Amino acid sequence: MNSLPKAPVTVLGLGPMGSALASTLVENGHPTTVWNRTASKAEPLVAMGATAAATVDEAVHASPLVIVNVIDYDAVDAILGPVAHELTGMTVVNLTNDSPDRARAMARWANDHGFDYLDGSIMTPTESIGRPEAVFLYSGSEELYEKHRDTLSTLGGTASYLGSDPGRAASFDVALLDIFWTGMTGVAHSFALARAEGITPTEFLPFAQGIVELVRDIAPEIAKHAELGEYPGDDSNLISTAAGLTHIIHAAQARNVDASVLRSVVGLVDQVIQAGHGGDSFSRMVEAFSR
Amino acid sequence: MNSLPKAPVTVLGLGPMGSALASTLVENGHPTTVWNRTASKAEPLVAMGATAAATVDEAVHASPLVIVNVIDYDAVDAILGPVAHELTGMTVVNLTNDSPDRARAMARWANDHGFDYLDGSIMTPTESIGRPEAVFLYSGSEELYEKHRDTLSTLGGTASYLGSDPGRAASFDVALLDIFWTGMTGVAHSFALARAEGITPTEFLPFAQGIVELVRDIAPEIAKHAELGEYPGDDSNLISTAAGLTHIIHAAQARNVDASVLRSVVGLVDQVIQAGHGGDSFSRMVEAFSR
Ligand SMILES: NC(=O)c1ccc[n+]([C@@H]2O[C@H](COP(=O)([O-])OP(=O)(O)OC[C@H]3O[C@@H](n4cnc5c(N)ncnc54)[C@H](OP(=O)(O)O)[C@@H]3O)[C@@H](O)[C@H]2O)c1
Ligand SMILES: NC(=O)c1ccc[n+]([C@@H]2O[C@H](COP(=O)([O-])OP(=O)(O)OC[C@H]3O[C@@H](n4cnc5c(N)ncnc54)[C@H](OP(=O)(O)O)[C@@H]3O)[C@@H](O)[C@H]2O)c1
Repeated sequence: MNSLPKAPVTVLGLGPMGSALASTLVENGHPTTVWNRTASKAEPLVAMGATAAATVDEAVHASPLVIVNVIDYDAVDAILGPVAHELTGMTVVNLTNDSPDRARAMARWANDHGFDYLDGSIMTPTESIGRPEAVFLYSGSEELYEKHRDTLSTLGGTASYLGSDPGRAASFDVALLDIFWTGMTGVAHSFALARAEGITPTEFLPFAQGIVELVRDIAPEIAKHAELGEYPGDDSNLISTAAGLTHIIHAAQARNVDASVLRSVVGLVDQVIQAGHGGDSFSRMVEAFSR
Repeated sequence: MNSLPKAPVTVLGLGPMGSALASTLVENGHPTTVWNRTASKAEPLVAMGATAAATVDEAVHASPLVIVNVIDYDAVDAILGPVAHELTGMTVVNLTNDSPDRARAMARWANDHGFDYLDGSIMTPTESIGRPEAVFLYSGSEELYEKHRDTLSTLGGTASYLGSDPGRAASFDVALLDIFWTGMTGVAHSFALARAEGITPTEFLPFAQGIVELVRDIAPEIAKHAELGEYPGDDSNLISTAAGLTHIIHAAQARNVDASVLRSVVGLVDQVIQAGHGGDSFSRMVEAFSR
């Protein structure tokens, strides 16, 4: 059985994530051109069958679809700025994470230079790429998204098109990364605290995962409260939360474990209690953060 | 079919959680005596079949097993201190959350007064009590735990006996609450940020839950790194994390959303980068917190 020829793709940026994107494209039969500031990172991909471009200019001319994935939009500017006039008529899919305003500005800049621009965010780790668990978010022109949908689906998992505002994927992205990095901070800190209490990471892990699931299961209640703008504390309230946070901080301090993040949280909770909301649910913090 | 007579139990403390514990005991046929500082909170339980005690003294004499569940150990001291000499030969199960050192001190105090003491922590919300999803942790005398195991199992879910050190349940508890409250902070903050970006809580919820699951799925890697004391950053490193955190902070500031917790996190991450670990995985933060 002959399969259809696959679209050629250029990948700019070969950090852990760019390398995962490029290798997945190669494995799926896309003629793949790669470039990275530090050229040596192309070597494993060339060994797999990718073509290394010596310059960005060469790289962007190799394929009508260019995926860029680097550390931030300053790096994207540094890479694409000098070749912007060469991009007319082409498509750039920017899978670099940055803020919504930067995404909107870059979409305007693309428009000014006459090339198509789709903004995307990757919400899952490198190992997920090409697999069902990968999560991609896109926003910008729907027509453009549909045009490249098949190629982009090679990258795996679930792709959500979030709307024509080019900043929308980045809006979801920053809010989701907020959960991710704050949650990861809690997990890393808890392993430090558990270890200081003589509990090994291996013993602690299944309990830790159970509590993370509890956070997932409580999220709908926070969403409901935030949607209604009502924060009833009948089942658990902020005064009780402040007491709980204080125990964690005391335990951390007693074992010489840094407690600055939790102190920052309890400081905000205390302000909300002082403002007269101590009987409300923790979900009230959604309002407290909004100013 | 006749069921065995159920053991009488006294519950001291009728906040949301104490009330859930007491009502579950009543529903399961345990003769249940209740007391709360604010007496009116006993009324719904009396309507269900519980007996309200007018004083702590009366309450502790009503049952050989006394469960205490209040805001913290200062409150436990305030309640049990005056009746400590009346407790000789009885059993107190303290399901109040506090720090490990407080739990150990209370076990010594119980021993000095000749009563049996089991320390416990409840890791799930009030709605879970009496249901399969409840999670209880216990530590202290194993014999004592076994003696009351049947009665305690009425409270539902999974109970883990963690060892004879009476502080051990509290050690797990503070480390798990650390994940819980830090994670809840991330979730509440992300709803604030998403809303500021024009994304409703309802739209955002399924994505938010997916990211929380990702934190759960990455936890084993953090545990592995912490166990080995090695933090390889091949898939994602702290410099990239710092960039990601900076985008979230910029997005929050652009929308007038408080960013103090994330600033506290990025400040710590930057210190670790300055110390030369920028190429390491985020799991390196376990070490960074441990000083
Ligand atoms: N890794 C993950 O698990 C993951 C998950 C989801 C999303 N992401 C996102 O994917 C993007 C890439 O992440 P990553 O983990 O692969 O690595 P990264 O450390 O965020 O970025 C490394 C890449 O950026 C390039 N770069 C940095 N500054 C540059 C500059 N001034 N000019 C040109 N290139 C520059 C690097 O080139 P050199 O090799 O020359 O330094 C390298 O290609 C980020 O936006 C990240 O948030 C990553
Ligand atoms: N609610 C939850 O979802 C949940 C989940 C897991 C664990 N827990 C733990 O369960 C415990 C109780 O929590 P909660 O949510 O029921 O409510 P809470 O707000 O933490 O505690 C309220 C209870 O403490 C009593 N209290 C406070 N100060 C007192 C004092 N100085 N003397 C005597 N009693 C005092 C209150 O009496 P008054 O009624 O007279 O004020 C009330 O009975 C806490 O340790 C909490 O961490 C709760």
